[in-house]
Amino acid sequence: MTMTEIDFSAGLFGKLRAGAGQIWESYVDHEFVRILGTGELPEACFRRFLVQDYLFLKHFARAYGLAVYKSQTVSDIRAANAALQGILQEVPLHVTYCASWGLSEAQMQYEPEANATITYTRYVNDIGNSGDLLDLLVALMPCVAGYAEIGQRLLAAPTTRIEGNPYGSWIENYKGEEYHEMVAASLCKFEDIGQRYGGETRLARLQEIFTTASRLEADFWQMGMDADPRRKTGA
Amino acid sequence: MTMTEIDFSAGLFGKLRAGAGQIWESYVDHEFVRILGTGELPEACFRRFLVQDYLFLKHFARAYGLAVYKSQTVSDIRAANAALQGILQEVPLHVTYCASWGLSEAQMQYEPEANATITYTRYVNDIGNSGDLLDLLVALMPCVAGYAEIGQRLLAAPTTRIEGNPYGSWIENYKGEEYHEMVAASLCKFEDIGQRYGGETRLARLQEIFTTASRLEADFWQMGMDADPRRKTGA
Amino acid sequence: MTMTEIDFSAGLFGKLRAGAGQIWESYVDHEFVRILGTGELPEACFRRFLVQDYLFLKHFARAYGLAVYKSQTVSDIRAANAALQGILQEVPLHVTYCASWGLSEAQMQYEPEANATITYTRYVNDIGNSGDLLDLLVALMPCVAGYAEIGQRLLAAPTTRIEGNPYGSWIENYKGEEYHEMVAASLCKFEDIGQRYGGETRLARLQEIFTTASRLEADFWQMGMDADPRRKTGA
Amino acid sequence: MTMTEIDFSAGLFGKLRAGAGQIWESYVDHEFVRILGTGELPEACFRRFLVQDYLFLKHFARAYGLAVYKSQTVSDIRAANAALQGILQEVPLHVTYCASWGLSEAQMQYEPEANATITYTRYVNDIGNSGDLLDLLVALMPCVAGYAEIGQRLLAAPTTRIEGNPYGSWIENYKGEEYHEMVAASLCKFEDIGQRYGGETRLARLQEIFTTASRLEADFWQMGMDADPRRKTGA
Repeated sequence: MTMTEIDFSAGLFGKLRAGAGQIWESYVDHEFVRILGTGELPEACFRRFLVQDYLFLKHFARAYGLAVYKSQTVSDIRAANAALQGILQEVPLHVTYCASWGLSEAQMQYEPEANATITYTRYVNDIGNSGDLLDLLVALMPCVAGYAEIGQRLLAAPTTRIEGNPYGSWIENYKGEEYHEMVAASLCKFEDIGQRYGGETRLARLQEIFTTASRLEADFWQMGMDADPRRKTGA
Repeated sequence: MTMTEIDFSAGLFGKLRAGAGQIWESYVDHEFVRILGTGELPEACFRRFLVQDYLFLKHFARAYGLAVYKSQTVSDIRAANAALQGILQEVPLHVTYCASWGLSEAQMQYEPEANATITYTRYVNDIGNSGDLLDLLVALMPCVAGYAEIGQRLLAAPTTRIEGNPYGSWIENYKGEEYHEMVAASLCKFEDIGQRYGGETRLARLQEIFTTASRLEADFWQMGMDADPRRKTGA
Repeated sequence: MTMTEIDFSAGLFGKLRAGAGQIWESYVDHEFVRILGTGELPEACFRRFLVQDYLFLKHFARAYGLAVYKSQTVSDIRAANAALQGILQEVPLHVTYCASWGLSEAQMQYEPEANATITYTRYVNDIGNSGDLLDLLVALMPCVAGYAEIGQRLLAAPTTRIEGNPYGSWIENYKGEEYHEMVAASLCKFEDIGQRYGGETRLARLQEIFTTASRLEADFWQMGMDADPRRKTGA
Repeated sequence: MTMTEIDFSAGLFGKLRAGAGQIWESYVDHEFVRILGTGELPEACFRRFLVQDYLFLKHFARAYGLAVYKSQTVSDIRAANAALQGILQEVPLHVTYCASWGLSEAQMQYEPEANATITYTRYVNDIGNSGDLLDLLVALMPCVAGYAEIGQRLLAAPTTRIEGNPYGSWIENYKGEEYHEMVAASLCKFEDIGQRYGGETRLARLQEIFTTASRLEADFWQMGMDADPRRKTGA
C-alpha cells in the first residue's frame, strides 16, 4: 500500500474532516508546512517545533495509555497498545533526529512546555477522561491522520523540494510503507469503534471535539512559526 | 405526583429494565425485600444492610461527583449535583435512622466494607471512568429507579404490613412526594442524556452494564440475607 | 473575620506561593488587575474577561466534581461539594453581572473558549485525573486563594478607586464576610489534606503544578488584556 | 538471578507486606495453593481459576494502561508499558495453556465474570483513578509480587510434587529467569516511585489499599476453591 491509497474522505473520519472545513485546511495547509516543503522555513521555527514535539510525545503516549484503560475488548486494547508502542519507539528516533539538529535530549526534557503544547495535549486528556473511547480517539485522530495527510500533500506538491531542503529528511519520513500501514490500521480501527459506539448518532459532539483538536493542531504549527520574530502573528 | 404514576417501562430505561429480565426481578423482588414487607426479616439481616448501606452512600456520592466532572453542559452538571446533594443530605438521616437501631456512626464508619458493597460501587466507578456520562448513569439507574420500584411494590403489596412491622418506617420512606419527584426527575434526565449520547445505537453495551449492575444490587440484598446463618446461601 | 486576617504566607500554601516567586507576582499583580483598580482598564478587556470567566466556571465546577470523586472521607467530599455549590451559585450572579455589561448568557454560552481558558482548565483536569486529591487541589489553589489575594491587594492599594470606577462593584465583591470565610475554609482544608497526603515529601512536583497553574492564571489576565489591540503583547 | 534472591521483606513493599500480616498469609498460603502443590486440588477448582484468570488479565492490562496515563516521566511510562506488554504476551500463552485443559478461548471470553474477579479488578481501577500512580501500584503489587512469592514457596516446599502433579507445569512457570527479572524490576520501580511520591508519609492509606487488595486476592483463590461443592465455604 502507498500513502496515496489512503482515502481521507471516507467513513466517519471523512465526515468529521469535511465538517471541520476551513479549520482542517488551516491545519493541514498551514504556512509552516508549506514553507517547510519549499525549504524556506526559518530554522528557529523548525527547532521550536522539534523541541515541543518531543514534549508532546510524552503526553500523546499517556493518552494512548488512557485508551488502553478505556478499552472493553482485548482487540481494542491491542490496537491502543500498538499505537503506544509506536510512540515509545518513535521517541529515540526523534531524539536522534533532534541530535542532528544540535538539540540534546537533556536540553529538550527541561525545556518548558509551550502553551500550545499544553493546550492540545491536556484538551485531549480531558476529553479522554470525561468521554468514552470514541471521544478520546476523535480527539487523537487529527494528529494521527492529519500528519499522514500533510505528508501525502507535501510529497505530492510540485513546490516541494527534497534535495537541498534542510527539512527534506523530515518530509521523507512520511514515505514509509510501515507508516502507511499504521495510519491505515488506525483509521480502520477508528471506523470500527465509531460504529460500535454509535458515532453516527453523536455527530454534533464528535464534530465539536474533532474541530477543536484540529484548531489546536493548527495552533501548534503557529507556535513553531512564532519562533521567528518576523513571522509572529501573536495569535 | 404519586409514585404509582412513575412508569418504569417507558423509554430507554424501560428497554434496559425489560432486557435485564429475570435478573431485574431477582433484584426488585428479592427475598430480603419480600420478608422485609411482611416483617419477618431477621433483625441481623436488616442491621447488616443498614451498616453496608451507610458505607455504600459514600461511594455513591463519589460516583455523582464523577458525573459532575463528566458533564458537558451546566444543566447536566446541575442534575448530577442535585443527586449528589440528595445523597449528602441523606447521610445524616441515615445516621439518625441507624441510631434508632442502636448503630452509631462511629461504629459504622469503621466497619469493613462487605465484598458485595465493594463489587457494586467499584464496578460503577470503573464504568464511569472508562465510559462516558451515559455509561455511568446506566450503572447508577438500577439503584436510583430500582429502589423506587421496590418501594412502589412494597406499598402496593397485599402482604405488606406497616403497623407492627419493625421495618415499617423504612418502607414508608418511599411514600414521600419529594422522593417521587427526585426519581421522576432522574428518569427524565436519563432519557434526555440517553438521546443526546446515542443510547439507541449503543444498546448492547448499555444492556450489559445495566444487567450487571442489577445483578450486583441483588447480591447486595443477598449480603444482607447472609447475615442470618440459617438463610445464608453462600452464593 | 476580614480578608486582611487571611495569612497567605503560612503552611504548605505559603511555601508553594513563595516557591512560585516572580510567576506568582506576575499573576496577582498583573497589569490587568492594576489598571482595573484605577479604572483605566479598556472596556473591551473587561468584557473579554467576563465572557471567558463564564466559560471557565463550568470547567471549574467539573474540577470540583472530580475532587468529590477523588475524596476518601465524607468530610473531604463535603468540602469539595461546598466549593462546587459555591460555583454553581456563582453562575447566576455572574450572569446577572454580565447582563449589566450588556452580555447575555445566550451570547456567552456560544462564545468560543479562548485558548487561555482551555489551557488552564484542561491542565487542572489532567492533573486531577493523573494525580491524587492533593495534586488536584494544588492546581486549583492559585485560583481560589489568588483571587482572594488580588481582592485584598486591590482593596488596600492607595491607587484603587471604587467610586467612579466602572469596575468598582467587581472589586467590592471581594469584601464580603461570606467570601472570606469560604477562602479561609478552603485554605484550612488544603493544609489538612496537604498533611494527610504527605505534601512535604512531594514538594518538587507540587511546586511544578502550582507554578504552572499560577502562570496559566497570569495568561488568563493577559488574554483579557489582548482584547485591546493597543495593548496586545502577542504572548 | 534466581527467585530465591528476591527479598520480599525489603523497602516499602516489605513494610506493606508485613503490615498486611495474617491477610497476606491467607493469600500466599491459601489452601488452594497448598493443595495445588501437592496435586490434590480438585480439577473443577483449577479450571474455575483458569477461566477467571483469563478474564482478570484483560482488566489487569487496562490497569497498566491507566498507569501509563498517570505517569509523569518517560521512564515511568516505559515501566508501565513493559508490564502491559508482558500481560498482552501472556494472554496467548494463557490461552494455549487453557486449551491443554480443554478450555477454548471462545468459551472463556463469554464466561461471566465471577464476583471475586469483578471485586478485585474494579477495586484496583477505582484506586487508580481516585489516587495517584503510587496508590495504583500499591493496589497492583499484591498480584505482581504475591504470585512470585507463591511460586517461590511452592518450588521450595517439601510437599510440592512436580512429577505426576497435573498442575506441575503451572508451578514450573514460576521458575523462569525472565520472570524473576520482571518481578525484580517491578519491585525496584515500585521502591523508586514510593520514594518520589512520598510513600513513607502516606503509609496508613497505602496499607489500607495493600491489605484490601491482598484480601481480594485471597478471595480470588477462594472463588476457585468454591468450584468444588465439597469445599465451598460460602464466604
